[in-house]
Amino acid sequence: MNFHALSVDQLSSARDDLQDLYRALRDAGLSLDLTRGKPAVDQLDLSNELLSLPGGDDYRTATGADTRNYGMGDGIPELREIFAEILGVPVANLVAAGNSSLELMHDVVSFAMLHGTVDSDRPWVRDEKVTFLCPAPGYDRHFAITEDLGVEMIAVPMLPNGPDVDLCAQLVADDPTIKGLWAVPTYSNPTGITFAEDVVERLMTMPAAAPDFRVFWDNAYVVHTIVDAAPPALPVLQIADEAGHPNRPFVFGSTSKITFAGGGISFFASSTDNLDWFRSHMSKRTIGPDKVNQLRHAKFFGDADGVRAHMRKHADLLAPKFRLVLDILDDRLGDSKVASWTEPEGGYFVSLDVIDGTAAKVIELAADAGIALTAAGSTYPYKKDPYDRNIRLAPTFVEIDDLRSAMDGVATCVLLAAADALLADQNS
Amino acid sequence: MNFHALSVDQLSSARDDLQDLYRALRDAGLSLDLTRGKPAVDQLDLSNELLSLPGGDDYRTATGADTRNYGMGDGIPELREIFAEILGVPVANLVAAGNSSLELMHDVVSFAMLHGTVDSDRPWVRDEKVTFLCPAPGYDRHFAITEDLGVEMIAVPMLPNGPDVDLCAQLVADDPTIKGLWAVPTYSNPTGITFAEDVVERLMTMPAAAPDFRVFWDNAYVVHTIVDAAPPALPVLQIADEAGHPNRPFVFGSTSKITFAGGGISFFASSTDNLDWFRSHMSKRTIGPDKVNQLRHAKFFGDADGVRAHMRKHADLLAPKFRLVLDILDDRLGDSKVASWTEPEGGYFVSLDVIDGTAAKVIELAADAGIALTAAGSTYPYKKDPYDRNIRLAPTFVEIDDLRSAMDGVATCVLLAAADALLADQNS
Repeated sequence: MNFHALSVDQLSSARDDLQDLYRALRDAGLSLDLTRGKPAVDQLDLSNELLSLPGGDDYRTATGADTRNYGMGDGIPELREIFAEILGVPVANLVAAGNSSLELMHDVVSFAMLHGTVDSDRPWVRDEKVTFLCPAPGYDRHFAITEDLGVEMIAVPMLPNGPDVDLCAQLVADDPTIKGLWAVPTYSNPTGITFAEDVVERLMTMPAAAPDFRVFWDNAYVVHTIVDAAPPALPVLQIADEAGHPNRPFVFGSTSKITFAGGGISFFASSTDNLDWFRSHMSKRTIGPDKVNQLRHAKFFGDADGVRAHMRKHADLLAPKFRLVLDILDDRLGDSKVASWTEPEGGYFVSLDVIDGTAAKVIELAADAGIALTAAGSTYPYKKDPYDRNIRLAPTFVEIDDLRSAMDGVATCVLLAAADALLADQNS
Repeated sequence: MNFHALSVDQLSSARDDLQDLYRALRDAGLSLDLTRGKPAVDQLDLSNELLSLPGGDDYRTATGADTRNYGMGDGIPELREIFAEILGVPVANLVAAGNSSLELMHDVVSFAMLHGTVDSDRPWVRDEKVTFLCPAPGYDRHFAITEDLGVEMIAVPMLPNGPDVDLCAQLVADDPTIKGLWAVPTYSNPTGITFAEDVVERLMTMPAAAPDFRVFWDNAYVVHTIVDAAPPALPVLQIADEAGHPNRPFVFGSTSKITFAGGGISFFASSTDNLDWFRSHMSKRTIGPDKVNQLRHAKFFGDADGVRAHMRKHADLLAPKFRLVLDILDDRLGDSKVASWTEPEGGYFVSLDVIDGTAAKVIELAADAGIALTAAGSTYPYKKDPYDRNIRLAPTFVEIDDLRSAMDGVATCVLLAAADALLADQNS
């Protein structure tokens, strides 16, 4: 039933039923967690071969280098080759690093703050104000980095084909304090959308008031499809270079959701000048990444096709979970018209929009019933969702039966909060 | 023969002989590298069991946590316990991190620059000047971090029992811009000395003008002895706490020279307040360290005694190399009185002092003969050895026959440069 078409009495009666349902839900004593985009145990099991690799006395790269010792700050060639192909960048422009691409993003922003970029007059900390554009709903950990470093954040709407690029272009052209833009171009966190080709072109080619404007291109889900094939990674380094902005893209990649979330490899790709800048500071931090783990991964994958074949096994495990979430949302909320949601073909999330002003309430109701959802507002800069509307659902980690219980409970909470809100509206 | 007691003619004749020796050395076409403190292949082989660990489907900590997934920002308990004992700190005050303690030092200085410490009024970058005391000869990579971050460095003399602590105490008491002091308390880089107990006490208890003065306690060689047993790690957190400076020590440790230089584990220990501060920023950088590698290490060592037993195997390989270096120096340079050197009981280096004004020349002569030594000045802040005197010898990486050739060559270069310098003195 369409909640918006109900009379006060009908709505009131519906709410009574929902309160009964909610009481039953709470009495069920669930303890389920949909907060984070974590791989499930069966996904991690797909990579257990890594636990005994590289094995024996196998510690040399194809070119004979000893991965156990210091050195090779760019990472080992065979793994760089695989992920250059995956990320659509030249291998000479890609380095393989430690176990977290978030670290690389944090460090690149830190280096820019403390030293400035190759196109900066001075360290960003010497500027009165540094601003980043934050397509929202977006990834909370991106926003946490910039907030922690004192960067001002402007939310720009995330549309079905990418960030509102007209607005981005206008802001970036006018405001020289805008030094960065966060982007998850493939199966974006949390909406699951992939940036359209013309949006990508525009982001890489649009004029910028700041000569040191950078796009932080976090291609975390580049091969994380749950349909037949992921869209190809567009050659952003080349597009930006041809537009006269060679140093604009900072590209990041990771195996965290390919192999082990807690023991994978991260990647950074950029122009030659940017890489030299990165190395000049990173070489003060470390005498090289964990190359044994890189060798382990290179042997596990073999080549880029090996990565894609491995991702199909993830898809087999994840597709049913996404299907279940969408089915329950459709079944329980479809007619009510009090919610809308994305139907991603990959990535780790479903983005659920509820009636404005009720997202925090839904999350609170769910928490009281033992269902943990990502904190209210998390998908917006400063954790402030201006509409109190967006809820990020992370269906990957829990087992499918628990996911069914959790999503059914979430649907009850959405409807109950909606009935309450609509009744309050009608009574005001 | 004592070079200082020779007549001009005798010296001149000695130089002629040395020039013949040097020509023969250059004709030998050596290509040997004594620049860096790298473990040799046979040392790395001691840990090859790690290449197949944790093995099978073994990925859980003793408490059942899945090391393959995100989380556990402090690292896994069983490895933290082992290294808390090794480093002489409470396990609650120690975190286990990635593959490089240099990273941790860099990041802690960066965090202080960008955010200030818990005892700072403001971020260090907002101060007009930030100064670090740098005991010298010291570790070039420490100085590179502070130089890169724009910190002013003051060299203080390294004495046989530690840094000149009277001078340190006076400077730190008087100058509120002094926010840090670099220290390698056990088998120091490069002199190999271990700080005496009273020096440690003084560094932790002396009054400081800056409330946010920190001692960067890089205990890189805490178990790296080549004699029977390493000196115990003093409980610096407790000493500082009892003196009313609980937040003064930042303690660092690493397995880089215990297992794999390129695939080990690093550690950070400090007061509860400092750790909370560290976590508040580090948790923005990463969703946890590589815990699979931590589990691998915990299984490999078993316990702290396992670490010590493993280090005895390193000692068996390293002691003959140190012995050889000292024998050659004694044999070739002992009577000449143109050089002095340390006789370390552990660590990775022998520190060689030549006649003032000749270190750069010795290093150049050696380089021309195919023997690479650590660059002149490296052991001083800004790479400027005010006396042009100190040469760091790193005997660990090369095989013993090559080490013999290299050290014999170095001795020839030292004597030749000395003869040249003394003759120039007499002619001036």
